[in-house]
Amino acid sequence: MNIRFYNARVLVQDQNQKFQVINGEVWVEGNKIIYVGDGSDTDKVIKKNEIIIWQREVDVKKNLLMPGFKNAHTHTAMTFLRSYADDVPLQVWLNDHIFPKEAMLKEEEAYYLNILGIMEYLTSGITSGFDMYLYPYATAKAAVDTGFRTVITSGLNNFSSSIEEVEEQCHKINEMSDLVSFVPGFHAEYTCSKELLTDLANLANKLHLPVWTHNSETALEVKECKERWGMSPTKFTDSLGMYEYGGGGYHCIWMDDTDYEIFKKHNMSMITCPASNAKLNDGVAPLKKFFDEGINVGIGTDGPSSNNCLDMFREMFLASGLSKLKEKDANSISAEDILRMAISGGAKAMCLDDCDSIAVGKKADIIMIDLQQPNMQPINNIVKNIVYSGSKVNVKMTMVDGNILYEDYKFNIGFDPIEIYEKANRIIGRMDKK
Amino acid sequence: MNIRFYNARVLVQDQNQKFQVINGEVWVEGNKIIYVGDGSDTDKVIKKNEIIIWQREVDVKKNLLMPGFKNAHTHTAMTFLRSYADDVPLQVWLNDHIFPKEAMLKEEEAYYLNILGIMEYLTSGITSGFDMYLYPYATAKAAVDTGFRTVITSGLNNFSSSIEEVEEQCHKINEMSDLVSFVPGFHAEYTCSKELLTDLANLANKLHLPVWTHNSETALEVKECKERWGMSPTKFTDSLGMYEYGGGGYHCIWMDDTDYEIFKKHNMSMITCPASNAKLNDGVAPLKKFFDEGINVGIGTDGPSSNNCLDMFREMFLASGLSKLKEKDANSISAEDILRMAISGGAKAMCLDDCDSIAVGKKADIIMIDLQQPNMQPINNIVKNIVYSGSKVNVKMTMVDGNILYEDYKFNIGFDPIEIYEKANRIIGRMDKK
Repeated sequence: MNIRFYNARVLVQDQNQKFQVINGEVWVEGNKIIYVGDGSDTDKVIKKNEIIIWQREVDVKKNLLMPGFKNAHTHTAMTFLRSYADDVPLQVWLNDHIFPKEAMLKEEEAYYLNILGIMEYLTSGITSGFDMYLYPYATAKAAVDTGFRTVITSGLNNFSSSIEEVEEQCHKINEMSDLVSFVPGFHAEYTCSKELLTDLANLANKLHLPVWTHNSETALEVKECKERWGMSPTKFTDSLGMYEYGGGGYHCIWMDDTDYEIFKKHNMSMITCPASNAKLNDGVAPLKKFFDEGINVGIGTDGPSSNNCLDMFREMFLASGLSKLKEKDANSISAEDILRMAISGGAKAMCLDDCDSIAVGKKADIIMIDLQQPNMQPINNIVKNIVYSGSKVNVKMTMVDGNILYEDYKFNIGFDPIEIYEKANRIIGRMDKK
Repeated sequence: MNIRFYNARVLVQDQNQKFQVINGEVWVEGNKIIYVGDGSDTDKVIKKNEIIIWQREVDVKKNLLMPGFKNAHTHTAMTFLRSYADDVPLQVWLNDHIFPKEAMLKEEEAYYLNILGIMEYLTSGITSGFDMYLYPYATAKAAVDTGFRTVITSGLNNFSSSIEEVEEQCHKINEMSDLVSFVPGFHAEYTCSKELLTDLANLANKLHLPVWTHNSETALEVKECKERWGMSPTKFTDSLGMYEYGGGGYHCIWMDDTDYEIFKKHNMSMITCPASNAKLNDGVAPLKKFFDEGINVGIGTDGPSSNNCLDMFREMFLASGLSKLKEKDANSISAEDILRMAISGGAKAMCLDDCDSIAVGKKADIIMIDLQQPNMQPINNIVKNIVYSGSKVNVKMTMVDGNILYEDYKFNIGFDPIEIYEKANRIIGRMDKK
């Protein structure tokens, strides 16, 4: 689709990656951004005698176009367990509530539950997710069918799936569509044997790919790993040759100095999930330390069962607020740095560097923020307004890969929302009957 | 206005104040709720040969009617300082940024800035605010003119206003309209002389009214009070006879055992403001302790300069999550208890017991939550969905005193939103020019 956005404020980045708001236009041709500017130099794009046929010309009415948020850690299809088990610690939550229900989940159900999650992403201006969950083909198919961008990693563990399956998923999903990609991953050190982890490291090194995992989410996990192997989860898995091609960790709350060095050595990323970490009482991630060490940081919602919602605005405020409390410093991390984590930090972790900004040549993963709402007024500082006051209610449009999938609170994903809700309720009904 | 809501889910409370969701109807006559039930027993309301003329009959489409949230601590007109000064500690924020700007604020400007804040309340399903700020008549007039319910308390201090003015405000505002009321208050121990506080205690006792204040918001405040008076802020102000008719404290983070005893003795309430407390690095309030002591707790957003948004959904999640982290217990306070704080806890603190539930005879301060959105699906548990996943985007209607002030993302408050935004931007523009 060729779309011209005009009369817009546009959030761009200067050469030092500093955010700037310019007034002007954004042109999208197919799935690419072909022009960003004040409209005076469009001859750079339109050659003599050439005509661009616009399918739509959108008056942005001085609202804000900005790059979509990257949800850098999630388990999308866990929508069925939203508000099902709450107010219990991580290990109880997993063993007593989540694993038994997941054992009942069918692949076709996971497909529709993914669509439900994707719908919520779109309402929060999230244009791509980094997903680890059961039935990765269902995850990929839901993304492709709705037009959503998803990076998938395997949740390899001792109890389900195998190295062979991970390798097959990697090949198949990476060839499926430009919207989906796959990198190897394992659930966590505590759910994998040393042999399995070694096999995964070998696979990643054979394929030249990064590896991702839940890492140091609870103090107990780190303690038990040290008892088992005499090393932290980061050091132990690194000792198996796991991160030769990078990768990273989700959560990373209980880290020691050696762990940071390993992250830096392999150019790894950390993904923080502040809402989930608070809700499960995992602790508060040392975000400032990662930031000061120059380690790339992204932000994730985690799954809708531990959070329980998929909302980057809430995550940004929490990442900021919890860091201020942890460091006992109201100036711990700036709003601008938090916003960068939610966009380009996540994009870097997900190898989506071509979706991380509104610039010529980048993919058109763009959202429109409605500034004509009370929580965005007055305009002292647009970046701070987004990070400290922003809400799903401000998301006026979400475009992924050049397609508008959500606009004026309505979905354009090829599925009737009411039918998706009914399917989700039927799935929990079926499980309850067992 | 007479309005019949049908085909609704309704959040009601049983005799033990436990939330229940029933299917049925809610009837509003004027500003009162006259019927709640499944529709089979409306003869209790409609007498023989009587006809109720409905101005509107609303098909709720199985969405949820629930009591509006009470924002139990705020400084509404501080909207002009949203995203103006951030990322600094409380005392720096106040002295170097806020006070100089506030000195430039005119009463007429405060009026419009209040309207901007009220608009944001409505988007978050907040039906009443507990306000402490400059120009209380502007606050009251903005509430009355838009149809919003506001309880006002005085921010008495050494530098502005006097006891005589507080007494006059009390009489005038309490007689102004059913929508507004006034109780005495002082800004904080550290901004008031002992003489001024004594005079305020005498006024409250003469009028038989409760007294409110910012209390133990920072560790520094408590330390300095103890150095000054050898007592905590709670104990010192209580020693002046301040709370003979109750009242309470906003924030209450740094409390000792004697303080809790004083709160219990005088049947006082505490109002927690978790987002503001995190953003200013004040600390995390001991919510669980207050709860266990049986002290009434409400939730406030604080002002839009320290938060920076006015969103009860964010506050509820934060109150819950921060309590879990503080107590190192994922089961610290239940979602149901958090929701009660945001509704009836606030109402009790604000002496709005006639607005705290959907029940016959109560005032019609009702909101409609759109359940047909992805973050509210599937429906494992509606209360948990609201507290852990809810968002402004789910607020389909906000009714105050029987009038629908916000519906389908549009305002019905007698003011053009765009003009209010323009006024707010002109105000910050005027101040910047000085």
